[in-house]
Amino acid sequence: MLIASRIDGNAKLRLSLDDRGLAYGDGVFRTVLITDRQAVDSEGQVDHLTDDAQRLNLGVPSRARLLAELDWAGRLVENGCCKLLLTRAATHRGYAPGPASAIARLICLVYAGHGVPRGEPCRLRSCSLQLTQQAALAGIKHLNRLEQVLARAEWSDPAIDEGLLMDVDGMVVGGTMSNVFWVENERLTTPDLSLCGVAGRMRARVMQAAVELGMPCIQARVAAAHCRANASEFFLTNSLWGLRAVSHWEDIRFAPGPVALRIAEYLRLGSTC
Amino acid sequence: MLIASRIDGNAKLRLSLDDRGLAYGDGVFRTVLITDRQAVDSEGQVDHLTDDAQRLNLGVPSRARLLAELDWAGRLVENGCCKLLLTRAATHRGYAPGPASAIARLICLVYAGHGVPRGEPCRLRSCSLQLTQQAALAGIKHLNRLEQVLARAEWSDPAIDEGLLMDVDGMVVGGTMSNVFWVENERLTTPDLSLCGVAGRMRARVMQAAVELGMPCIQARVAAAHCRANASEFFLTNSLWGLRAVSHWEDIRFAPGPVALRIAEYLRLGSTC
Repeated sequence: MLIASRIDGNAKLRLSLDDRGLAYGDGVFRTVLITDRQAVDSEGQVDHLTDDAQRLNLGVPSRARLLAELDWAGRLVENGCCKLLLTRAATHRGYAPGPASAIARLICLVYAGHGVPRGEPCRLRSCSLQLTQQAALAGIKHLNRLEQVLARAEWSDPAIDEGLLMDVDGMVVGGTMSNVFWVENERLTTPDLSLCGVAGRMRARVMQAAVELGMPCIQARVAAAHCRANASEFFLTNSLWGLRAVSHWEDIRFAPGPVALRIAEYLRLGSTC
Repeated sequence: MLIASRIDGNAKLRLSLDDRGLAYGDGVFRTVLITDRQAVDSEGQVDHLTDDAQRLNLGVPSRARLLAELDWAGRLVENGCCKLLLTRAATHRGYAPGPASAIARLICLVYAGHGVPRGEPCRLRSCSLQLTQQAALAGIKHLNRLEQVLARAEWSDPAIDEGLLMDVDGMVVGGTMSNVFWVENERLTTPDLSLCGVAGRMRARVMQAAVELGMPCIQARVAAAHCRANASEFFLTNSLWGLRAVSHWEDIRFAPGPVALRIAEYLRLGSTC
């Protein structure tokens, strides 16, 4: 439930109708977990939001401003989440983006609760929609998310927790709202996102944890068929779920795996696997 | 200049921050010319908006409702334009689209003036960004327009009027904000948009006019190099410009062509070529 929102630091429930986020999806966002009245991993989330915004040549508000927003959001709710968006400053109608010196609009939405099912097995299906490859946008958590909407519309069975997306070459990219990891011959692997997909903040945290645990993660373009045949454990990540083990990928079953457990414990992510 | 706006028929300048148009670009739009206090080609524009919305499984307001909105917009300004958007009804956070029975939000923005340069030669450049091919979204004028924003950001020279986009196979698709036509061996040709691109309403009008004039237009996937070598005339269309002849495509020059002139006269599109 949306409980509060503001724009550029001012309490607001509504947005100018000529915002470029609405007109073109011309902006970026991050979703941040709030636990115990604190935004989790604020610094890292702000890093990623800033990197994404810079790739689109948006004028980024100061780091202090972004952190203050997450701090404000955290104090509003015991447990929930916060969505932080930056949309490009609009100067006129039309696609031309205007000067990068114009600071993007900062929108903050705070939700009570986040509907995260902890400790439950996660069931995964393969989506038939194939993601396109646009290197100029790959990895960025931008506001053009119709492919994810179409993919998520492929199923309504509440027993299915997530849909797995492949790209036009049949390579595994990620879930509709999560990144994926698997273990193959004891090597932790995650899709290379240089052609498509969203590089979530939790993905980066898991990769960093793997390095610190002495089992560096490989980024690779791997066909779904290969992955299905060779993965010994499979898990999903996003900032709300943390790390979530997959128990079923359609007809394939995975037992809870030691690698996922070790990383989740290291990152103190609770009981999601 | 934005002079008026409304949402679902009520005067409003601002939008709910949890609108799915903002969150995901989950919606469609059309831009409609207003001349002499009347929205031009209302019926056709409403047809296209409705078709697009149905392809995304949006709940579409009644035809009478959509036409009334354009009628309202037209009466507000002597000459200008109107942007009509439909964004998917939001039921909860997350990509799952909810029931198609929920009627989409209808947003109407009315602008005075449209900055359309009539009768001037149009200079075209080739963009380096290549459009991805997503058949599920191809042709739809949806709100995921970051590729167009990136392409438009490639130039700032005001002498360049439009950028031409090719797809990942190097095939001609269209301008950043227009459709393209050319004449090759006396055959009128326009890109096939079944893999990417936006099927503008003016494109459909020009194709229909061509049929009525006994010179049916071919839709084809044609490489830019072939087009550059073989086109004898080249023109752009959108609902604000009408039909606009290209005089320069980088180093290639085109003389005003008889086909463009004949179609523009037939459609009474003024002196844009």
